[in-house]
Amino acid sequence: MTSARPFNFSAGPAVLPEPVLHQVAAEMLDWHGSGMSVMEMSHRGKEFGSILEAAERDLRELLAVPANFRVLFMQGGGLGENAIVPLNLSRGSKVDVVVTGSWSRKSAAEARRYADVQIAADIGKGHKIPTDWALRDDAAYVHVCTNETIDGVEFHELPQLTHGAPLVADVSSHVLSRPIDWSRVGLAFGGAQKNIGPAGLTLVFVRDDLLGRALDICPSAFNYETVAANQSMFNTPPTFAIYVAGLVFQWIKGLDYAGKQGLAAIEQRNIDKAALLYGALDASGFYENRVDASCRSRMNVPFFLKDEKLNDVFLAEAKAAGLLQLKGHKSVGGMRASIYNAMPLEGVQALVGFLKAFEARHG
Amino acid sequence: MTSARPFNFSAGPAVLPEPVLHQVAAEMLDWHGSGMSVMEMSHRGKEFGSILEAAERDLRELLAVPANFRVLFMQGGGLGENAIVPLNLSRGSKVDVVVTGSWSRKSAAEARRYADVQIAADIGKGHKIPTDWALRDDAAYVHVCTNETIDGVEFHELPQLTHGAPLVADVSSHVLSRPIDWSRVGLAFGGAQKNIGPAGLTLVFVRDDLLGRALDICPSAFNYETVAANQSMFNTPPTFAIYVAGLVFQWIKGLDYAGKQGLAAIEQRNIDKAALLYGALDASGFYENRVDASCRSRMNVPFFLKDEKLNDVFLAEAKAAGLLQLKGHKSVGGMRASIYNAMPLEGVQALVGFLKAFEARHG
Repeated sequence: MTSARPFNFSAGPAVLPEPVLHQVAAEMLDWHGSGMSVMEMSHRGKEFGSILEAAERDLRELLAVPANFRVLFMQGGGLGENAIVPLNLSRGSKVDVVVTGSWSRKSAAEARRYADVQIAADIGKGHKIPTDWALRDDAAYVHVCTNETIDGVEFHELPQLTHGAPLVADVSSHVLSRPIDWSRVGLAFGGAQKNIGPAGLTLVFVRDDLLGRALDICPSAFNYETVAANQSMFNTPPTFAIYVAGLVFQWIKGLDYAGKQGLAAIEQRNIDKAALLYGALDASGFYENRVDASCRSRMNVPFFLKDEKLNDVFLAEAKAAGLLQLKGHKSVGGMRASIYNAMPLEGVQALVGFLKAFEARHG
Repeated sequence: MTSARPFNFSAGPAVLPEPVLHQVAAEMLDWHGSGMSVMEMSHRGKEFGSILEAAERDLRELLAVPANFRVLFMQGGGLGENAIVPLNLSRGSKVDVVVTGSWSRKSAAEARRYADVQIAADIGKGHKIPTDWALRDDAAYVHVCTNETIDGVEFHELPQLTHGAPLVADVSSHVLSRPIDWSRVGLAFGGAQKNIGPAGLTLVFVRDDLLGRALDICPSAFNYETVAANQSMFNTPPTFAIYVAGLVFQWIKGLDYAGKQGLAAIEQRNIDKAALLYGALDASGFYENRVDASCRSRMNVPFFLKDEKLNDVFLAEAKAAGLLQLKGHKSVGGMRASIYNAMPLEGVQALVGFLKAFEARHG
């Protein structure tokens, strides 16, 4: 399928696989002969039941989720989870947070409503994940954001905690871009709107033994044990978003790239995309990415023009070249290219070509 | 536009206007020349900004929402709001709940996590809204569910409270089917999945003076004041669901029926649909609706076959006749026809024709 669509580098909600959008459009008035749009189906009917079941099965297969983890389809996004996690896991006691950027900083602030929060390490204004963590033996859990969307900082490997507290990982902006080492995780959560599907769906992976610890003040609709006991149907789930997510899971399963399939294929493609873009930025004296090589994100690449007076013309010319939403987050400035799973290699090639041409014209 | 689609009587997620589904499909890969699906747009970009602004403007116009009410686009559904409302409004003090069916009973139970809840009146196993309410002068608010989806019980007029406490109305399953008398309401909320759009979007209408009362334990993402201060963008809103809702609002605005337009047209059509269906049920000795005429719902019509042994064959023959999802809620049994805004008059005519034919065959 050839496409004249521009390349969309939005940090989220973000680009989706074009074949998925075609299928969603084609099935809009009649899903599989049911006579209904997925939006119109009772969540308790057999049609939607089959959609939910397939989505969970495919997701489990892609990420090799162990049987002792529950997969929950929830609402509220990452910011909602910043409260929902401590409501469920903190027991009102101690929570350690490793701050590696804007998102983990927000998580720490919100958890203070419910727990004694300690910042175990803080990247501050630096660009390298600190290695020295002050962890408390009796913390209810340790929170990390494994990919900082705004700052472009990613854990290339999950930390291995040895002091007994479970690791809680906010995987919002890189889930399904690489495997997850479940032996190192107690709970992982992520908003769908980067790598999975439409905004309004939140995925939670929670180890069985962490269920049943919620505070009495935890709303039933956000109580992991309640949601798990009702197969994500305690309240009406975001059915259409789950349907789109399921199609994205199938799209990943069907991928073939560099001799690899499925999640391994998408990971290799992400590695290649990131190498291409960082390579171009590093080779130039005109652009700059400041993140330490040990923790550069494969998904979100913030960069700066050394001459920031050119920012506006850069964005205008990029848009004219069919490269959309490259403006950096307002808290950071500069540019940011989000190159999530659904961004094809051709999109990064086009961006790199534009970077070089823009430098040639204005450098 | 003619259609061979069956008629879908689901209680929610429910039927949507067919022209809306066509438009959603047509715009799936490229919204208004943006080169993006609405699902792929940054919520902070100008494209989605214009969608959100138009949706709120049209909604305010349709329901004549006064300027001193804020309109919030949230997540979590009615069950989420059962906690979010007391977290925001109860001040940990007294809440009075009028129980008229399953939903208000659930609301009362959930509010007990945060407040001293009193049942001010209870319909019990009856079918008529009680008129004698034991209200406390110092309650933080009085909660009612103005349309009980499961029980088919609707307030035909909002109660006028005179003791000073604001009224909180769960309008989930009849919002936009009729006007709301805002002089009688402090807060109204509703999940979108009946009359508005896809599941995963929750609308909240809150009077300005009720902002700023949240308990410290209220999650930021669900704090009305925070959500209002950020124009529903504190967390990433369910953008695609808001887009579909906006198209539904435009569809209502463009309606013309019995010489009426917009909300008056949809209300008249709902009156006619309900009169047709209740009339057919009442005229028959074969079917029965048990709700008192003073509070029969225009949206949800539960009914029973007097010979319940015929239930399965009724459902099978209905489905074969293109009449879907007529099974009653498991807690009530029997049948239920949900005839929301998007159900055309022809759907109710088809159902009434089927009721008569089925009775003729099996009565």
